[in-house]
Amino acid sequence: MKKLDFKKGNGLIPVIVQDVNSKEILMLAYANEEALEKTLSTGYAYYWSRSRKKLWMKGKTSGHTQKINLVATDCDYDTLLYVVQQKGPACHTGEYTCFHNKLTIR
Amino acid sequence: MKKLDFKKGNGLIPVIVQDVNSKEILMLAYANEEALEKTLSTGYAYYWSRSRKKLWMKGKTSGHTQKINLVATDCDYDTLLYVVQQKGPACHTGEYTCFHNKLTIR
Repeated sequence: MKKLDFKKGNGLIPVIVQDVNSKEILMLAYANEEALEKTLSTGYAYYWSRSRKKLWMKGKTSGHTQKINLVATDCDYDTLLYVVQQKGPACHTGEYTCFHNKLTIR
Repeated sequence: MKKLDFKKGNGLIPVIVQDVNSKEILMLAYANEEALEKTLSTGYAYYWSRSRKKLWMKGKTSGHTQKINLVATDCDYDTLLYVVQQKGPACHTGEYTCFHNKLTIR
């Protein structure tokens, strides 16, 4: 954890969020050190909200929490992966995943 | 595609890369508009290298290319998802995925 590179993103690391069962990508969010520490100590996903500029427990108001199954980081320690048990939809639009907009290929 | 928000990240959008078969997360990279256009027009994954500051076709030198199966974007148009057929390992370390470092939970 000390190896994590929070400097590259001005204190924030992007977090890929994946469903442990379906393996679908649910969302991309950002964590500062405090958000990661809270995630690791509570077992539930915490993030830093860039728009609201505050620590945020996913699902605290909506109930759509993310129970952590695994936290991993990549080869250069500048990205995180949370593998989670998603309760209800992950997206604020009510869709299960935030990645519901397909771009046409060719 | 016109909806995509390249401004938030100073011209770059993070790209989550997922294996179409195993559903594993392979890596996180960044795309500018040109990289996305090349990806859509050629059917192979292109990125913007932040360290080398240039357009980069994944696997051009290593042969470890990523054939595009699907490109999607998220609900607020500031993240991309490439679902790919990965040839060889995705990570420069020789590991199949860049996310091979697990953090302990609790």
